[in-house]
Parts: sequence; C-alpha cells; structure tokens
Amino acid sequence: MLAFAKGHGTLNDFVCLSDPDGALTLTDDQLRFLCDRRAGIGGDGTLRAVRARHVPGYQQFGDAWFMDYRNADASIAEMCGNGLRVFLRYLQTEGLIEATPVEIVTRAGVRRGEFLPDGDIRVSMGLPTLAPEPVTVTAGGRSFRAAVIVVGNPHAAVVLAPGELDGIDLSVEPGYPTQVYPQRANIEFVEPVGAHHVRMRVWERGVGETFSCGTGTVAAAVAAAAAAGERTGSWRVDPPGGSLLVELTAEQAHLTGPAVIVARGKVDL
Amino acid sequence: MLAFAKGHGTLNDFVCLSDPDGALTLTDDQLRFLCDRRAGIGGDGTLRAVRARHVPGYQQFGDAWFMDYRNADASIAEMCGNGLRVFLRYLQTEGLIEATPVEIVTRAGVRRGEFLPDGDIRVSMGLPTLAPEPVTVTAGGRSFRAAVIVVGNPHAAVVLAPGELDGIDLSVEPGYPTQVYPQRANIEFVEPVGAHHVRMRVWERGVGETFSCGTGTVAAAVAAAAAAGERTGSWRVDPPGGSLLVELTAEQAHLTGPAVIVARGKVDL
Repeated sequence: MLAFAKGHGTLNDFVCLSDPDGALTLTDDQLRFLCDRRAGIGGDGTLRAVRARHVPGYQQFGDAWFMDYRNADASIAEMCGNGLRVFLRYLQTEGLIEATPVEIVTRAGVRRGEFLPDGDIRVSMGLPTLAPEPVTVTAGGRSFRAAVIVVGNPHAAVVLAPGELDGIDLSVEPGYPTQVYPQRANIEFVEPVGAHHVRMRVWERGVGETFSCGTGTVAAAVAAAAAAGERTGSWRVDPPGGSLLVELTAEQAHLTGPAVIVARGKVDL
Repeated sequence: MLAFAKGHGTLNDFVCLSDPDGALTLTDDQLRFLCDRRAGIGGDGTLRAVRARHVPGYQQFGDAWFMDYRNADASIAEMCGNGLRVFLRYLQTEGLIEATPVEIVTRAGVRRGEFLPDGDIRVSMGLPTLAPEPVTVTAGGRSFRAAVIVVGNPHAAVVLAPGELDGIDLSVEPGYPTQVYPQRANIEFVEPVGAHHVRMRVWERGVGETFSCGTGTVAAAVAAAAAAGERTGSWRVDPPGGSLLVELTAEQAHLTGPAVIVARGKVDL
C-alpha cells in the first residue's frame, strides 16, 4: 500500500507521492497504473517529492525538493506549470515546507514558488523566448500565422480575432512545419476578451486538446503581448479548465493560479 | 473529509462510500464531484452502502445492505452488475459482511452475491426475458437483426459472424426502433470466438461505447444462446474491459467476474 494524494490545477490533475529519501522504486507499469483513470487512481501525470540529494545529477541542491514529474505514460517531462503549483500545494498540505517562498528543483532548472494571501500559488516559469519569424499553422482547412515561442518546451501560438476561438477545429492535430519543431510542438489558439485578457485552447503534443497547459498559458500571454506590441506586462489567460495570471518581465515569466489537493489515501500497487 | 474507496470490475469503476446509519446527505453536486475524473476522484458512478432500514421504501429489509447506486451525473440507476460485484468487494474489505453468500437490496430487487474460492464474485441478475420478435439495429450504414432482451433494463443484442466485431462503427449511437424502446436501449454487438464463448462491444444508453456493462453481458449471453437454439447454459462473455461468466437457468441469470478495491482514503468535499 502506497500513500498518495490527488490534486489538480485548472483541471490538470496529478497523483502526488512523498518520497523524501528517494527510497521509492516504482516501475513504469506502476506509474501508468497510478494514472489509469479506471483501473487505478487517474491523472495526467505523477509528481514525486524527493530531496534533491537523492536524485542523480541534482545532489548539489541538497535538501531542496525535487519535482519528479512523469506523464501518464510514465515518460519524463521537464516541467509542468500546473503540476508545479499542485506540487507546492502538496508539499504544503503534507507539512513538508513552510508557507514562504521556496525553491523547487525541476528538470528544467530551479523554480521559485510562493503562496499568495488569496490562496493562489505563484511560480516562476523561466524566461520565454519569441522567435523573430512566425510560422504557418493549419487547422480545419484554415491557415494561421503563429508565433514561435519556447517556454522550456516548444510552442506555436496563434492570436485570433474576437469570436473565432470556439470555431477552431482541434479534433485532429494542427499542421505546422516540423523542421522548425523537430521535437513537435504545443499549439495554442488565443482570442482577446478584454484588456490584457485572453481565452485560449491548446493542443498538447502527444496528448491532444487539453483543459489547461501551464507553459501554454505563458506562450499565449507572450503571443498576445507581441500582437499588442508589448513584451512585458500582466495577462489573464483563461484555458478551458480555469483562469491563470501570467506576468511577463524582461527576466522571467510568472504563472499564478489555483491548486488544490482533493483526496489522500493509500493505493494497492 | 469523507472516507471513500475506489474500485472497479472489468474497468467499470466506482467511488464507494460507507454509510451504515443513513446519516450521509450528499447533494447531487457532491456526487458529481466524486465522479469527476479531474476535479474529484473519478468513476462511472457512486456506490453508497447503507442499512436498508434507513432507506425509505426498503425498511422491511432491516439490517441487509442496500446498494445506493448513482450514475456519474447523480441520476439513479436501478442496477449495475459490475457495480454489484464491486459493492460486495467493498463490503468485504471494509469488514461489513462475512465471506458467505449474502443478500444485497437494490432498487431492482434483492440480489445474492458470493465470493468464490478463485477470488471472483458471483451475483444473481434476475431472470432475463427474450422477446419473440427481433428488431432492426443500424450502425455504420449497415442493418442487423437484434434480439430484444430485458435484464431489468432494455437491451438490443446483435449476434455477428466471427471477425465482424472490430469493424462495427460505434462512434455514434446505433439506430433502433424507439417505439420498441421508449426508455432508450443498450445495444450489444456479439461475436462468437469459441464454444459458448463470445466477445462483445456495448453502447450504453446515455453514455456511449463503454468498457463493460454487467447487464449487457447477460443480454449478450442470452442472444448468443438463442442464436445457438439454447435457453440455458454457461457463456464466457468478453467485453473490452475483461472477461465474465454468465450462467443462464430457467429461473435466473448469474454473473461471475472480478472486482477489486484499488485505493481508499479521504476526500475533501
């Protein structure tokens, strides 16, 4: 029997595991079982909390918490903005960290998280980059200009006119130039709904259309800002699963939003 | 915080709750939250265990356990063969029943369950009825003769030739005469794979194609038996989610298969 918690951020959901001493050896089959929505617990991925000193390649970070994020298929993912907030909430509710700014070690580098007075969690997301030239993305037989953005992982973000978003066909993967994206891309469609406020839909590579994608909301804000002739500023970004705040500065993006642990228990592996 | 367990039978999964004294008052929103696969725990439905004496209309059954089954949308369902096995496993693992044949009160009547030495659970399913005249079911532009079967709930079961099952289009609801099925129907497609052994796929009314349906496997066995000129006997029936044994006698059908509790814990309502 393995102790677990289940939580989500804007409906991006995770099975959380506590393993301070790195003693837990779960097979890929066991990780997949945990994420199986019918046979197991269910989630978009697993988040294992382990002290960095026990993780090969990250020992120099000592007692800092390492976020071992795996996708539902047990493959390794470098970062997940929604997952990072859920990870922080999990550490907090397990009593593993104090409610102060804290550094979390991820495979994409060290990220900083803080608990805000209103209950939201704010995390650093690194510095997103915007390529000088756009690419063409196709969906539902239409072509769109898309901004090429890297938020640790690769994105193509299309800024639409108001009212266009719901009509975009995301039943199949959008087309895009694979020579620009040899590792494939996440595709965002963004629609303005107000001042510094957009709605978005996202196709996650290897998954399909999802309720939310943390790095995708950052890419959406970068694209919306660029379309407005801006590089910094705060943007409210609403994916189907909720609402997030993206702050862009010259040094860093920050993502702020909810994260909740809804259940904890023991699972029979 | 509410104590729960999660389990499944042939991938039909349920959130199980213990409420011996009928003290639990969950709203429909809370039941839907429990079944929400991202925001909550996740399941095809909830199974609440309550002593019958506390259930209006069933007080005469005294200390017998009443299975309060609700669909994921919180609507009431009379019976669920896979749910009944999971319910029995839950009662057993919670120490609420002894490992002997036991009667369970359901909205479809009293059902009998027993734990077999091999770990499977065998439950009574009532007497299925077969109408004298078939109906026509359409799927993917093809027409099929379907047996009209009632297993507490209405079914139309098509017996195919070997090799035909995987080619059936169940991306949309099959067509059938609604005057025969004013309450809509569950549709089974059945393919022989051996002596008294069939594979099946099922469209559950209001849901779509599912991994398994307990009453549907009984209907599949009745239709396969009828196609073989039989009314009684044992049939192995394999839905996509696993394998079940259906025993048909002149008085009753019995359904035998696995049921497992995979996790238990507390959920924050």
